[in-house]
Amino acid sequence: MFEDERAGGLRTKKRIGIIGGNEADQRLYEIAFEVGKLIAKNDAILICGGLGGVMEAASKGAKSMGGITIGIIPSSNIKDANRYIDIPISTGIGLARNLMVVLNSDVLIAIDGKYGTLSEISYALIFGKRVIGLETWDIEGVKKAHNPEEAIKFALYDHK
Amino acid sequence: MFEDERAGGLRTKKRIGIIGGNEADQRLYEIAFEVGKLIAKNDAILICGGLGGVMEAASKGAKSMGGITIGIIPSSNIKDANRYIDIPISTGIGLARNLMVVLNSDVLIAIDGKYGTLSEISYALIFGKRVIGLETWDIEGVKKAHNPEEAIKFALYDHK
Amino acid sequence: MFEDERAGGLRTKKRIGIIGGNEADQRLYEIAFEVGKLIAKNDAILICGGLGGVMEAASKGAKSMGGITIGIIPSSNIKDANRYIDIPISTGIGLARNLMVVLNSDVLIAIDGKYGTLSEISYALIFGKRVIGLETWDIEGVKKAHNPEEAIKFALYDHK
Amino acid sequence: MFEDERAGGLRTKKRIGIIGGNEADQRLYEIAFEVGKLIAKNDAILICGGLGGVMEAASKGAKSMGGITIGIIPSSNIKDANRYIDIPISTGIGLARNLMVVLNSDVLIAIDGKYGTLSEISYALIFGKRVIGLETWDIEGVKKAHNPEEAIKFALYDHK
Repeated sequence: MFEDERAGGLRTKKRIGIIGGNEADQRLYEIAFEVGKLIAKNDAILICGGLGGVMEAASKGAKSMGGITIGIIPSSNIKDANRYIDIPISTGIGLARNLMVVLNSDVLIAIDGKYGTLSEISYALIFGKRVIGLETWDIEGVKKAHNPEEAIKFALYDHK
Repeated sequence: MFEDERAGGLRTKKRIGIIGGNEADQRLYEIAFEVGKLIAKNDAILICGGLGGVMEAASKGAKSMGGITIGIIPSSNIKDANRYIDIPISTGIGLARNLMVVLNSDVLIAIDGKYGTLSEISYALIFGKRVIGLETWDIEGVKKAHNPEEAIKFALYDHK
Repeated sequence: MFEDERAGGLRTKKRIGIIGGNEADQRLYEIAFEVGKLIAKNDAILICGGLGGVMEAASKGAKSMGGITIGIIPSSNIKDANRYIDIPISTGIGLARNLMVVLNSDVLIAIDGKYGTLSEISYALIFGKRVIGLETWDIEGVKKAHNPEEAIKFALYDHK
Repeated sequence: MFEDERAGGLRTKKRIGIIGGNEADQRLYEIAFEVGKLIAKNDAILICGGLGGVMEAASKGAKSMGGITIGIIPSSNIKDANRYIDIPISTGIGLARNLMVVLNSDVLIAIDGKYGTLSEISYALIFGKRVIGLETWDIEGVKKAHNPEEAIKFALYDHK
């Protein structure tokens, strides 16, 4: 694996950020899982905050399809990342890491979420990044999707 | 690639941090390149600050053997990472990112370097991480190696 | 000045954070100026992001009454703070400093503002800090005020 | 107090950073206390990391002369600052705050200290800030002082 690869293989893949709460009921977990699956199926890299709930569900979905997952976590200990994260990145800067989740994503999909997710939506829109929303905050600038398939379609193809 | 992999494949690999200056003369470039090669050959992941000089040389060495390279960069733009970085991580926090290079490494090899490298050596020793030194600062707590092979040996096998 | 003071004099003063955009038309500038005046009049310390627009107006208002102003700025250079800031604090971490504006405020007043302000509102609500809103985002958890006087009253006395 | 002051009064004062360990034996505590006293006596502002040991001693010394002390702390809770800090600044970014102590100082005096202090010395020298050393790391670029008076003299008047 990786044997013939020059940097560029991974560098050229699209990075889709998943933002959402650290908790998720079963229905949201399934939605996030499905979004993660579709990210992997479309050969994109999943970026997230590396913890539980929506982040875990999406990472698990991506791994179920052999995708690559990067989790940018608040703490200093990479073991705090959920077990579906291939590449945990420790920041040690607490919730200031929310900005980094955004900076490392080409486009973001927000799923549910509370104020942490809202901070990430805000940062994304400051930096002019597209944000797709699935059952999340209704903020001007967030493009609403109605299901995982539509969210991925908007994330990958719709550049308006 | 990655198809059969669950998180854990990448998660279980050792992460070796390369710290060193943003500039390197030819001799240092070759030393760092060799260290990078040996990291990849030993199936470890190379972590670094993602920029030029020693960081670039080591990343290039790792990629020449099909290794995996992560570059944690100061700026907000992942394109600022050198072209041998598979997985650039933007931080947007400037030189405060030096701490993150350390937090994400299991062990570090310092090659040459000026005050930036010294800040990283300091952080590593605060967190009790082993630091191997190759032609770098002579600081108590840094284990001196005389060549790339010895540096890698100390990084991988010598836990004293 | 300060001669008889032990730490505690300044430590015991309430800190009111002003969050709002880096630009402000004349009407908003006057509103923010008035809020700043009232902060100083009530012997509180004004905390803000230290730049222009609403931040500058409020700082200017506070200084017009001899108040104390702290500006936590994104850049590495304290000279980037507006000239009504007594105590500029450089962070060097860019917009990740938005979290610090929140952490250093006991209560916050949001005035107008775009996505940067929204990120600060979000952070404040994550940390359970009270946010008073003046012509700003209509977000659940933000207590709406109708004028500077009411905003200050809510900030100082209304703990619901 | 402050009544007649425009920003600029505090803005024009020199800021002297004190870096040193979180622990100090009695002799070091007295040295740091004396340095703090001299900072206040010379109408400069004391900047430090806000915690114990050398930081506390210097802050206490400055307050004994009615000086102004700013403590930039790692945690999210301003109460973690020692009680001689007038203006605690919470960062919430852990030891990445070491860079901020440096960025907010015009010149720094290092007293004793371990690796944390070394990281701050490193950052200071990266940014071309003068560092005076009192019984601390012997690093190229640090100007050695032999007692508190000499340290302050170097900090205030010697621009070589």
